Amino acid sequence: MHLFLYGPSGSGKSTLGRQLAHDLKLPFVDLDQVIEIDAGMSISEVVEAEGMAKVRDLETEAMKQTINGKESVVALGGGALLRDENRKLVEQNGRVILLKAEPSTLLNRLGKDPNKRPLLAGDLESKLKAYLEGRAGHYASFPLQVFVDNGGIEQISKHVQALAGRHHLSAMGEYDVIVGRAFRVTNLQNPIIVTDENVAKFHLEKIQGLFNAKSIIISPGEEYKNLETVSRLWRAFLENGLDRKSTVIALGGGVIGDLTGFAASTYMRGIDWIGIPTTLLSMVDASLGGKTGFDLPEGKNLVGSFHPPKLVIADPGFLLTLPERELRSGMAEVVKHGIISDPDLFAMCQRGMDWVKDNLEDVVKRAMAVKIQVIEEDPFEKGIRAKLNLGHTVGHAIELVSKFELRHGEAIAIGTATEARYAARVGLASQSMVEAIKSAFLELGLPIHIPAEMPRDEILRVMRVDKKKNAQAIRFALPVEIGNVELVEVTDLEEVIQ
Amino acid sequence: MHLFLYGPSGSGKSTLGRQLAHDLKLPFVDLDQVIEIDAGMSISEVVEAEGMAKVRDLETEAMKQTINGKESVVALGGGALLRDENRKLVEQNGRVILLKAEPSTLLNRLGKDPNKRPLLAGDLESKLKAYLEGRAGHYASFPLQVFVDNGGIEQISKHVQALAGRHHLSAMGEYDVIVGRAFRVTNLQNPIIVTDENVAKFHLEKIQGLFNAKSIIISPGEEYKNLETVSRLWRAFLENGLDRKSTVIALGGGVIGDLTGFAASTYMRGIDWIGIPTTLLSMVDASLGGKTGFDLPEGKNLVGSFHPPKLVIADPGFLLTLPERELRSGMAEVVKHGIISDPDLFAMCQRGMDWVKDNLEDVVKRAMAVKIQVIEEDPFEKGIRAKLNLGHTVGHAIELVSKFELRHGEAIAIGTATEARYAARVGLASQSMVEAIKSAFLELGLPIHIPAEMPRDEILRVMRVDKKKNAQAIRFALPVEIGNVELVEVTDLEEVIQ
Repeated sequence: MHLFLYGPSGSGKSTLGRQLAHDLKLPFVDLDQVIEIDAGMSISEVVEAEGMAKVRDLETEAMKQTINGKESVVALGGGALLRDENRKLVEQNGRVILLKAEPSTLLNRLGKDPNKRPLLAGDLESKLKAYLEGRAGHYASFPLQVFVDNGGIEQISKHVQALAGRHHLSAMGEYDVIVGRAFRVTNLQNPIIVTDENVAKFHLEKIQGLFNAKSIIISPGEEYKNLETVSRLWRAFLENGLDRKSTVIALGGGVIGDLTGFAASTYMRGIDWIGIPTTLLSMVDASLGGKTGFDLPEGKNLVGSFHPPKLVIADPGFLLTLPERELRSGMAEVVKHGIISDPDLFAMCQRGMDWVKDNLEDVVKRAMAVKIQVIEEDPFEKGIRAKLNLGHTVGHAIELVSKFELRHGEAIAIGTATEARYAARVGLASQSMVEAIKSAFLELGLPIHIPAEMPRDEILRVMRVDKKKNAQAIRFALPVEIGNVELVEVTDLEEVIQ
Repeated sequence: MHLFLYGPSGSGKSTLGRQLAHDLKLPFVDLDQVIEIDAGMSISEVVEAEGMAKVRDLETEAMKQTINGKESVVALGGGALLRDENRKLVEQNGRVILLKAEPSTLLNRLGKDPNKRPLLAGDLESKLKAYLEGRAGHYASFPLQVFVDNGGIEQISKHVQALAGRHHLSAMGEYDVIVGRAFRVTNLQNPIIVTDENVAKFHLEKIQGLFNAKSIIISPGEEYKNLETVSRLWRAFLENGLDRKSTVIALGGGVIGDLTGFAASTYMRGIDWIGIPTTLLSMVDASLGGKTGFDLPEGKNLVGSFHPPKLVIADPGFLLTLPERELRSGMAEVVKHGIISDPDLFAMCQRGMDWVKDNLEDVVKRAMAVKIQVIEEDPFEKGIRAKLNLGHTVGHAIELVSKFELRHGEAIAIGTATEARYAARVGLASQSMVEAIKSAFLELGLPIHIPAEMPRDEILRVMRVDKKKNAQAIRFALPVEIGNVELVEVTDLEEVIQ
């Protein structure tokens, strides 16, 4: 999937393109340069000699070259997509990000480099005005837009990555994360797909076709996230002749990812895997960060490893086949991500389930970007990554005590609401924050109270045995406002779940 | 354990000390500098004002200071250990390495810096001669000696590390390796010892006392290196309240290290462990390099991880309680290390079991140094680390087929001899190399032939399922001469075990 940067002269396509290419570990292509090299003269000279149409022809040619080459970040000329053929070409082979800037920003930047912009020769200010007015409708027609007036280049690059759903993680292992239609990865040795019966019904055939892979199908559900299943996977890898260079593909929700990732991390001391999450929950949470593992009867994720996949492909199309309850459950983690550091994402959640369903891809991209930012900063949970535990200390415990009758996200919604109420009670947060959180969950059809019949002492016992415990106190990630979470040692656990 | 560098003026104690401290990630102390700072004048001035006896007093004082401080590398003055009190002090608190140099080397170096050596003022050459003659007996009385005339400083530092049995590994994780009497490690949180019934009888009480730790005792033997035991360990960690900051101590042979290391690597996604190997085999091989894991019925070490300990303490004193057969078995890996890259070590092995028993500490240090050099260069077995598989492709298989009636080292001896014969048969090695290898194993009381009754097809089947297989060929580490092993793809497996 290529990334094309587009926008008016002076919007900084080349500068941003270089930064983005660096961040994503992709090659950078400046299409104007390709054209000038091909033509053997500058674009201004081409315009003068043969007119703008010739430039468009050369652009078409250069785009085709680039698209046929390796995945790359491409800076396009300011009018390169005016021609329908060119637009279709790039939209079929990647994503176009439109860079938006105030005229004053453009003017300022162009003033420094008046030679290179053939269409703006002469009285810059009036020309620019006409130029922008003439293209306003064209530029507005691109769905992915980023403002470039403010913020450093690194920050703008991050925005583009979030918007494009394209990341490269490097804090723990090196891997790409791509939001978009599932695609074939070439050159895999002896790939095998691990999935569960539910997912297999909907998506196995397609993925098997893409990867030309064998498959292992396990029983669905958290209750199978145990040693027996892991052991079954090891044996199946062996029976299928997997060796150290083989790749396993995890197709499914968080349970599939955790089990497959763990089996891969320990089979022959670690083989590669690819994550293809099929639930909202696993896209925005479990598939990112390299945590793998399984449950013991005593608690969740007590055995595991850090072993990130080599690639995550999050295809929002998979979410269309999810049961409503599963989709709602996934939204609990999205709300959590909003509370942690993205008030705009939180506001999206407050619009309720119907809006979310119409904007799933945007929701997925934003929520994944929050998690990626956190885990890149603190891959091994030495500090701020613990913020992602918001709602989980209580949530894990009640999920377990409910014997998985509560879905993970439902338990996290209850956990988050419960922890928010506690934060307000001890004066860390306002009551209005608590109300906002509660209403967001309610709009999404998620529960916010610990079931009345659930034994409180059992919840406490499980919280204490949970791996996040310390000798005396348990460290909670408590919300202090929308967009901000603090890590707090809590000793009085009874108080939390009251 | 402090390291003291000692020797005549000009032997390079300070320069080497700095390199050594850098390599071992320890602080460096120049004792003469400490003295000069304490005295407020140069050592020459002290000699002139108050005589040599005063210098010795100051040395005693400075040594006491240094010994009470953090573990460090210490460069001593050229006569600092002439006084018995001083010698006793440093020998009780660390190791003294004597730097030996030809008089011409010393003369050359001293010529450049005549001021700082009070005892050599005046006609340098004749003074030096007298000085060295006077101290010849004294210097000769130190058991650990390193020549410093040739080789770069980094290489000499490596020699000192091997001789002192003190290393710092950093290619996979960061950890110290110390050959010497077991000692207490302070500041461990909730330490727990994993050992087996056999080892517990001899050594548990001592180590438990040192570490003030609880213990988990499992059944001894390779047949318990399975998932059931790992599962037992996870549960025991949980029952004993281990959390992410706890440390596990593996006290025992390779099986204990592999199991404990694996359980630690996966418990709560990885906790720290310390290796205290008690067998020769585990000291010179399994305890180094971070490979952990367990066997499946289909083959050895099919499940595992790379998770080095935080510290390895190899106490050769433990070897005194080993059954003769176990000690001989361990020598197979020592021979292997000699063949891989240390002809002198191989020559030591050829002297037979009695000589080895009298020189166990030297044998352990040399063999560990070989392995450390290889794994630091190639921690994840992308290349040369595979050389350590010498004898193991065949050896693992026959060990398994023998249902562990053959000890690991016995199987490796047979495997190495078998692979050596194959190497000679295909023209990679000379027949005299094969004879040398065979005679070394025979001198040590180790077998060199696959038992006649062992089914060859079964060995082949297991070799193929072993994790080192490739699709078509198996890569062998084959000996080409003593001190040199090559990696070779072999397709005709029947030929190997003929």
